[in-house]
Amino acid sequence: DILYNVEKLLTPQDLAGLDVLVTAGPTREPLDPVRYLTNRSSGKMGYALARAAALRGAEVTLVSGPTGLTAPPDVVTIAVETAREMYEAVLQHFEQADVVIKAAAVADYRPQDVAGRKIKKQGQELQLQLVHNPDILAELGRRKKDCQLLVGFAAETNDLERHALAKLKGKNLDLLVANDVTAPGAGFDCDTNQVKIFARNGEVVSLPLMDKNKVAQQILDRVAGLLTDRREAN
Amino acid sequence: DILYNVEKLLTPQDLAGLDVLVTAGPTREPLDPVRYLTNRSSGKMGYALARAAALRGAEVTLVSGPTGLTAPPDVVTIAVETAREMYEAVLQHFEQADVVIKAAAVADYRPQDVAGRKIKKQGQELQLQLVHNPDILAELGRRKKDCQLLVGFAAETNDLERHALAKLKGKNLDLLVANDVTAPGAGFDCDTNQVKIFARNGEVVSLPLMDKNKVAQQILDRVAGLLTDRREAN
Repeated sequence: DILYNVEKLLTPQDLAGLDVLVTAGPTREPLDPVRYLTNRSSGKMGYALARAAALRGAEVTLVSGPTGLTAPPDVVTIAVETAREMYEAVLQHFEQADVVIKAAAVADYRPQDVAGRKIKKQGQELQLQLVHNPDILAELGRRKKDCQLLVGFAAETNDLERHALAKLKGKNLDLLVANDVTAPGAGFDCDTNQVKIFARNGEVVSLPLMDKNKVAQQILDRVAGLLTDRREAN
Repeated sequence: DILYNVEKLLTPQDLAGLDVLVTAGPTREPLDPVRYLTNRSSGKMGYALARAAALRGAEVTLVSGPTGLTAPPDVVTIAVETAREMYEAVLQHFEQADVVIKAAAVADYRPQDVAGRKIKKQGQELQLQLVHNPDILAELGRRKKDCQLLVGFAAETNDLERHALAKLKGKNLDLLVANDVTAPGAGFDCDTNQVKIFARNGEVVSLPLMDKNKVAQQILDRVAGLLTDRREAN
């Protein structure tokens, strides 16, 4: 992609030398070979982040659930389907990553039993037993070393600030990007997003509605800032 | 679309004057504003049918679940999300249709309760109570007049012939198009498909693996043939 390479030549390489791991998209949790449980994530925010980080010189690995999107040629993309596949792929790469940005909307629950054949219509009702998927972000928060930066996302429909702060602390994140997916122009399948970025140090930035590529730049600006602060503190 | 118009000019208008109703894609059955239950239908088979019927001169209405596809400009497309929305849209149009081709993969079940807010993670397990969606095809079979032609689809993972014949009879169809979605190159999200077409009169045609546009033409050939037979019988 020539345009991409030109854009990269014109972009300050302030993330050069950094290994950035991004996750994107929804996960699919099968009930049988045909049916699955999923969510409205389009993957656009994660792909915008992967692209923006690569443009700024980072070595980017993108672990992506099913989306119709394509990443730039210099992003290593690992396609996964279920939350457990994403867990495996992320954990495998986590050790070597400097920055991890978990933009994927991982399914919290999956059907306990996956039928090998298509479930035929039965009675009027069907009980579906769901079990918890592994909490990837919490696991990364536990494993995180001081030199690593962990950025999480929260899609909320209510009590945004309370849920966001609880998640930031509870999962040992450095930054949490929260959006109210019910707000017009924000959230799933939109090309725009309106987010609040909560930092571990208490700083909160409320951004106006903007293109997801611009939101990605804003998030990476904060990542770059935190990395600079750390270097100066050492 | 100039190419489409040229192709139409070159296509025999053997379905001219017919009102053809096609359904396509999956349905989405929400659990809450973010999560939903769905299936692997891409909508490609239904869109290929709508396009092929319009090229052959039919007035086509396409009732489509969420897909990334676009129909030709002379196809009236009605976008729906849930099985119940599809039921409403199809029933509204059914009376005036000469031919109905139900290529959509309608969800058999939906969550009984839809949460207005995103369900927060709770315990390790979650019971999801599913209830039956209305059976659109069966309802159309009940309402069908002698002058109407009803074509159904069956995506199977096992016992294809038995399931297909049961569906053809049970739902009062004129044609049933069955495919084994586990066969290589057949079924969901493929550009090709390998189908067996079962007719009410006992005729069974096994087609080789072919492009979905070609499968659509084969199905419409049989529809046109049945309509000619009827005209000649009267």
